[in-house]
Amino acid sequence: MDRFFDAKSVVVVGVSDSPLNLGRSMVLNLLEFRYTGIIFVVGPKGGSFMGHKIHRQVKDIPEPVDLAAILVPATAVPDVLRQCGEKGIPRVVLESAGFRELGPDRFELEEEVRDVLKRYGTRMIGPNGLGIINRRNGLAVPFMPFKAEAPPGRVAVIAQSGGIGAMMINMLAAENLGFSKFASIGNKLDVNETELLEYLIGDHETDVIYCYLEGIAQGRRLMEIARRSPKPIVIHKSNLGQSAAMIARSHSASLSSDDQVVDAAFRQCGVVRTREQRETVEIVKAFSLPPMRGNRLAIISRSGGHAVLAADAAEEFGFQLPPFPPEVIAEVREHSRAGVIDFHNPLDLGDLFDLSLYRRLAEMSLAREDLDGMVFIHNYQGDMDVENSRSLIVSLGELLTKVQKPIGVCVFTTDDELLLNRKATTVPIFTDPKEAVRSLARTRDYGQKQFLPFSTTRPDRIDSARARFELTTAMPGPMPPEKLAAILSAYGIPLVPWHLVETEAEALRVACNLGFPLVLKTAHPEVIHKSDAGGVVLDLADERAASQAYRSLTRFGPRVLVEKMSRHGLEWLVGGRQDGAFGPVLVVGLGGIYVEVFRETAIRIAPIAYEEAHRMVTECKGSALLRGVRGQLPLDQQALLDVMVRVSWLLTDFPEIQELDLNPVRVLDSGCLALDWRALVAGGA
Amino acid sequence: MDRFFDAKSVVVVGVSDSPLNLGRSMVLNLLEFRYTGIIFVVGPKGGSFMGHKIHRQVKDIPEPVDLAAILVPATAVPDVLRQCGEKGIPRVVLESAGFRELGPDRFELEEEVRDVLKRYGTRMIGPNGLGIINRRNGLAVPFMPFKAEAPPGRVAVIAQSGGIGAMMINMLAAENLGFSKFASIGNKLDVNETELLEYLIGDHETDVIYCYLEGIAQGRRLMEIARRSPKPIVIHKSNLGQSAAMIARSHSASLSSDDQVVDAAFRQCGVVRTREQRETVEIVKAFSLPPMRGNRLAIISRSGGHAVLAADAAEEFGFQLPPFPPEVIAEVREHSRAGVIDFHNPLDLGDLFDLSLYRRLAEMSLAREDLDGMVFIHNYQGDMDVENSRSLIVSLGELLTKVQKPIGVCVFTTDDELLLNRKATTVPIFTDPKEAVRSLARTRDYGQKQFLPFSTTRPDRIDSARARFELTTAMPGPMPPEKLAAILSAYGIPLVPWHLVETEAEALRVACNLGFPLVLKTAHPEVIHKSDAGGVVLDLADERAASQAYRSLTRFGPRVLVEKMSRHGLEWLVGGRQDGAFGPVLVVGLGGIYVEVFRETAIRIAPIAYEEAHRMVTECKGSALLRGVRGQLPLDQQALLDVMVRVSWLLTDFPEIQELDLNPVRVLDSGCLALDWRALVAGGA
Repeated sequence: MDRFFDAKSVVVVGVSDSPLNLGRSMVLNLLEFRYTGIIFVVGPKGGSFMGHKIHRQVKDIPEPVDLAAILVPATAVPDVLRQCGEKGIPRVVLESAGFRELGPDRFELEEEVRDVLKRYGTRMIGPNGLGIINRRNGLAVPFMPFKAEAPPGRVAVIAQSGGIGAMMINMLAAENLGFSKFASIGNKLDVNETELLEYLIGDHETDVIYCYLEGIAQGRRLMEIARRSPKPIVIHKSNLGQSAAMIARSHSASLSSDDQVVDAAFRQCGVVRTREQRETVEIVKAFSLPPMRGNRLAIISRSGGHAVLAADAAEEFGFQLPPFPPEVIAEVREHSRAGVIDFHNPLDLGDLFDLSLYRRLAEMSLAREDLDGMVFIHNYQGDMDVENSRSLIVSLGELLTKVQKPIGVCVFTTDDELLLNRKATTVPIFTDPKEAVRSLARTRDYGQKQFLPFSTTRPDRIDSARARFELTTAMPGPMPPEKLAAILSAYGIPLVPWHLVETEAEALRVACNLGFPLVLKTAHPEVIHKSDAGGVVLDLADERAASQAYRSLTRFGPRVLVEKMSRHGLEWLVGGRQDGAFGPVLVVGLGGIYVEVFRETAIRIAPIAYEEAHRMVTECKGSALLRGVRGQLPLDQQALLDVMVRVSWLLTDFPEIQELDLNPVRVLDSGCLALDWRALVAGGA
Repeated sequence: MDRFFDAKSVVVVGVSDSPLNLGRSMVLNLLEFRYTGIIFVVGPKGGSFMGHKIHRQVKDIPEPVDLAAILVPATAVPDVLRQCGEKGIPRVVLESAGFRELGPDRFELEEEVRDVLKRYGTRMIGPNGLGIINRRNGLAVPFMPFKAEAPPGRVAVIAQSGGIGAMMINMLAAENLGFSKFASIGNKLDVNETELLEYLIGDHETDVIYCYLEGIAQGRRLMEIARRSPKPIVIHKSNLGQSAAMIARSHSASLSSDDQVVDAAFRQCGVVRTREQRETVEIVKAFSLPPMRGNRLAIISRSGGHAVLAADAAEEFGFQLPPFPPEVIAEVREHSRAGVIDFHNPLDLGDLFDLSLYRRLAEMSLAREDLDGMVFIHNYQGDMDVENSRSLIVSLGELLTKVQKPIGVCVFTTDDELLLNRKATTVPIFTDPKEAVRSLARTRDYGQKQFLPFSTTRPDRIDSARARFELTTAMPGPMPPEKLAAILSAYGIPLVPWHLVETEAEALRVACNLGFPLVLKTAHPEVIHKSDAGGVVLDLADERAASQAYRSLTRFGPRVLVEKMSRHGLEWLVGGRQDGAFGPVLVVGLGGIYVEVFRETAIRIAPIAYEEAHRMVTECKGSALLRGVRGQLPLDQQALLDVMVRVSWLLTDFPEIQELDLNPVRVLDSGCLALDWRALVAGGA
């Protein structure tokens, strides 16, 4: 990947003398960012631009070239790529649009591009992207004019949309936070976000990685990479509407939209998800601070009202506000003018007029072992205290860098002053106490999180060969219950005692063997919502009732399941589905009627370990019911966890099981039992 | 109130020639804002300032004065106020600190101030505030220097904290949104937010009212005023920590923190609550647009990525995105350069280079009856399209004013350009598509809401005299169950059949009369969590079990309740408490063990009507269980609503009932029954 970003020479292909020509901006950006390598320029009409001869063809360039940045009409792209290949240019940034984003009739063109890349071993970023920037060597080839405004920063920006990438650069610049590297990846025909993430994790100039994605190329690999990353990865995943297309045939699927799966996957591997651009900037600001290593926060404010807001936020985000150390209190007391101060935390400095004291108080406080971070709120207005305020703000930035504890510096002043202050320091300045407190909380929480890898330990008593046999003989579509039961049993998942019968006489014989009360339900796999369709008859107390029930169910066909009836314990749902981006997904939550009422579930990418299963159950409010509320006995949570882990492996081992519902799974005082099971097998596999 | 804001002459009291003197800023603000009235200046040392003679005392002023703005040490305040009274000055803005915010030892000083005000009939804003500003006549007396930056706007700002008020003015100015009037109300010793709200609702220069409050003076009056307001009222209520002090003795109280009650009260009367300063600015921006009168949104974007973000947001906020009208499509098709456009909504204009066309497309679209509003996303970078982009943005502002439909104008460019654009228009500019879409949704939702007044119709069959009699004989503290039962019955609230017994023999006699199964529970009022304490014995099937249960309960005392046992229906909680700011509060939610597990409740300020009770139940997810899920029969929701309305009246009629829990109330197929009831009577009433 560094052959892209560290290219020593670059050719811009697609430059003309038309004022509307975008290739010119690509060259101008290289100049604006002071590219340290050699620039070549290519355009069919020849001529010159900014002192560079415009070669008519790539092959006309007299020297070897490391990187080609191409903006020519889509149809001309394969030929240009071939020329680059012949010339031995190993890396290409393709900025042309006109590929799959226009519809399926461009797939062929993409295929041609892919073939050329393969033939010459060329690697490519794009098409339909804005190009890349490396702030260090000035390699900057976007076709929109950028300005090298803020100093180089420690944030790398990857964006599937060039516009959003550019806007993020602008927003960071407005806070005087620069970036290290930029890549607009467009259609991701060759290089995708995963490779770039891997590269940036190893990049010494990058501390935080931001990524805007409309689709995820390799979900599981992204998770593996993110888990190992020592740097925060912040991803804005948009394009939520795409998920609406899917029609779910199971509860597990309807309770795990694509977007919920993205949420779960990101949380599981430590990716920080963002959903708004301003939130993104706030997160980047947070991770630009030294991390908060504990929970003890000091709040100093010149304005009482802002102190109240900060205290509210501190409570919301779970910070402690210990009293200020005595030496600080003594200092304040000595300099207080009218005695109009209460010496609490938050500390209101409204009555202290000597601004040089402010910094001293911050330093004395943060020198203490028993304070982990600070929110410092300063306001000034118009012409008063301007110089002193400016130097206070700069000095707070120096202080936090020195002591390596975070200070959320909040400044309230006019917009012009804010701009000046931002330019004077590389430390983020906040304009809302809540934003500052939340940022400190982010750095604290990020540091405390521990992420489990996908489980690698399979539970015992799994007979996957048996399950495989059943699956190979399964037709696409809803699976017959007895077949699925065999698979579940092969995976050690406990089912309620059941028998498949095909005549009334058989039903009665089985009924007498199992003992009453009983449940009869149709075994027809196509009846999906069995209860609603009248395909389940509960509470059968005797033979007569069983006979009647069997006869009523024959309208769905003669195949009927006879099961023991049980009302004990608590109903849960355990299920899952295959996700296009992340593969097997496990879903768990309160079951039975609660599924529809509360729709409260926990989701993970499978396979998971017991610990993770435990976390999932704990996430559900209903877990309190497992522990026993109001003097009820606790239920066998361990048995539920065991079922979850087994289901997660089943879905992992057999991607052809597209959707799976065990609902309800009855959790008992001891053990648990699935009472109903359904699965959908992928078509034509 | 207009005697404050329309004062024709003002005296600033507390001016000296010290450079640290804050009174000078007050005079300077009057000059900065070009006050159209007469200025007088008072300070003990005399002299002159900015061409005005400094009178040594208020009484030395040679002419009548409408308003005094005072900043002198707290202890000197009563004397200055007396002088103002003698001089016949009817209105005072007191900016001095040093009153109750310093603690109880200043209450006496406040009392003295109150006495003086009363004696002379003076009305006062403050103390401990920053003063007031009227943008129209330039009356501006804050002691912090303000700048008259943005043009006068249509937002009035009331702030309990001067710092936050000032900051809001700055944040509005940064968006080029000005304000109409400003009042920092500080300790609210005389004039409070309610009076100001009432005044501003009638103020022709104000369209939106923003209010920052740390405490609420007259909650119910505020609700009545807000309900009648034709203008949006936006309140930032902070100081959430104060509620932590309360120790709740009932579920209803623990499920209705002060902050949740504020939420409920605001929603009930249509106040828009905000919790962050940036959110506040966004809300003010939203209400600066013409309201969206329907749900059909058009999105036009120059950047595909931003179009995706806008479409995501449109889905989140429930907008429809109808296809663009054919005349717009035709226009686009004609001018599209490379044909690299998909003609959907969102409409991506990335390939249209003629910016004058952009405005035309917006105009053609909004002229249609079948489009209610638009999000227009424009991005430009560096040196390209600068002039055209600037005039496009101004023209979109003119267009929305003309057609009176909202356009969420989103601009992505450099920070400097953004600043210039903002100064060029009074229409809000957004920097995030989601922000723009959410703003349009706010105007849509605000217009659609209907607010019910407090109910004025009492249900029939209420014997409040009987309830009054029981209450007058109740001791403070937990109420004996038989007394509370009598009160509840007097209010027509159905209780499970119950009997109070004091001996085992009596218990058995009652048991046989009621019929088994039965419940026995202690009637000792101090046993609050009866189930946890073992004070309830369920499922008693026969006399022997009843005897045993009675004997086990005697450890709490001989008084025991015997009740019919019931397991049918669904358990709800109905209860409430008295709130310091808003009075009687009704709380409802799923009951029994679900209270602790889901903590999901609906809250209203009482008394409520049936319609509002119905909304409350609908807010709870558990309401699905009332309607009957999965083939279960629906339960008698009407009966539950009736209990809710009656409880709301009971709490309204008797403020001495501090907390009340009916938990559970069993909702049956027909009717409902409270199975357990507890109340706390206020002490020493």
